[in-house]
Amino acid sequence: MVKRAIIAGTGALPALLLAGSPAHVVSFDDVPPDLPGMARLIPARFEKLGKLFYDLSVAGVREVAFAGAMSRPVLDPGQFDAATAALVPRLTAAMAQGDDALLRDVMALFEERGFAILGAHQIRPDLVAEAGALCGPAPNAVDVARARAVLDALGPLDVGQAAIAAQGQVIGIETLQGTDALLQYVAATAPASGGVLVKRPKPGQDLRVDMPAIGPRTVHLAAEAGLSAIEIAAGAVLLLDRAAVLEACAETGLALWAAA
Amino acid sequence: MVKRAIIAGTGALPALLLAGSPAHVVSFDDVPPDLPGMARLIPARFEKLGKLFYDLSVAGVREVAFAGAMSRPVLDPGQFDAATAALVPRLTAAMAQGDDALLRDVMALFEERGFAILGAHQIRPDLVAEAGALCGPAPNAVDVARARAVLDALGPLDVGQAAIAAQGQVIGIETLQGTDALLQYVAATAPASGGVLVKRPKPGQDLRVDMPAIGPRTVHLAAEAGLSAIEIAAGAVLLLDRAAVLEACAETGLALWAAA
Repeated sequence: MVKRAIIAGTGALPALLLAGSPAHVVSFDDVPPDLPGMARLIPARFEKLGKLFYDLSVAGVREVAFAGAMSRPVLDPGQFDAATAALVPRLTAAMAQGDDALLRDVMALFEERGFAILGAHQIRPDLVAEAGALCGPAPNAVDVARARAVLDALGPLDVGQAAIAAQGQVIGIETLQGTDALLQYVAATAPASGGVLVKRPKPGQDLRVDMPAIGPRTVHLAAEAGLSAIEIAAGAVLLLDRAAVLEACAETGLALWAAA
Repeated sequence: MVKRAIIAGTGALPALLLAGSPAHVVSFDDVPPDLPGMARLIPARFEKLGKLFYDLSVAGVREVAFAGAMSRPVLDPGQFDAATAALVPRLTAAMAQGDDALLRDVMALFEERGFAILGAHQIRPDLVAEAGALCGPAPNAVDVARARAVLDALGPLDVGQAAIAAQGQVIGIETLQGTDALLQYVAATAPASGGVLVKRPKPGQDLRVDMPAIGPRTVHLAAEAGLSAIEIAAGAVLLLDRAAVLEACAETGLALWAAA
């Protein structure tokens, strides 16, 4: 009996997790995804969380994994079921604290109902990197140290999953807009710098639901930004997926290393 | 007798300082600027610093002000005078430490020869702002606090003269590319955020030669980025110039405050 459900957002991750082992798929989309390996589709609405928890129990689900991006929903209060209506004050309070707090609270809801929450790296350990070289020569140590120092400094503020240094200078710091936007900024403002992108989780980040990720697009954007290397945190940055990322590295000549 | 020389780079500042009081103008450009209020033009070459110090002494100069942007020169060793040749090991060592170290060393060269170095704000105090409102309502306090926290965290790394927060989230952090590039990034990636730009010197910054500045272009770019306000450090950010900046604020509806 399938005990696991993937709560599927957008992107490549839901399919990658299903390729690891069969699971049900919870989808909040009006047009649910058609994912190979899906045991059963469990359609869901944010207004009907009571129904979702019931459906999961009926399906025998004991473990859930949040996978892929989900945007903050627009809610129709007329659609609330009783359980959701009772949760509104709590979820509203969490929402006021920001997306991270909301996500933590949604996770707590599942845990309070006895579901275990699995991280993508627990289902597919091959999606994260062991320490060492994945591709190419070691990134410039001075630039790595400089970018890491920026992330160290910003971590306590819950800002910055990524920073870029080149020739000892900081030329990019990730903000809310994400890594792709950061790389496009560097491509536009400091091309051909030969710099290094360092990407890793923020100190308090819950890797079960909010792991940083890179994909082939990240590699291509880094190459277009004139960088020479990417350093990711070993065991804590998803490769979506590994084969595609390594192929992009080989194609572009970009080095990729994982740091312990 | 005119005792002051403006070492003129590009931008509006040299002319603004001459409008304060007459001075000689040192220019490293092949085509020297034609600045109203200039007492005497002292053409200079980076390869002939001995000659420059001699010319300044002959002109009776006791005070110098560095004004405007200057890029790292390409040097022709065949042109070195004896004094410059003797300084090459020292300047090369400073250059290896980065632009800030080079600038500090160049300042030290002038001070060792008895020249006093004046900051732009000492010549024209009206170019910096007193604490309080320059234009419009007070910036959002949460966003100001968030952007300031980022600058506090990065200051010890000598990174970041400016940061932008909107709705409590950090959406931009200045790197080597400067404030204009930062604002264009925000315009492209997080338009209409209603955020606040906070700009101030880094902790170790020598305000005599390297004061942060905003101009009407800064205001227009901030407005185009969808920001609602700029906060600058009182007494420590140049307005180039004040009338033009205030006019741009009035035109765009952007608020401008100076914080003590």
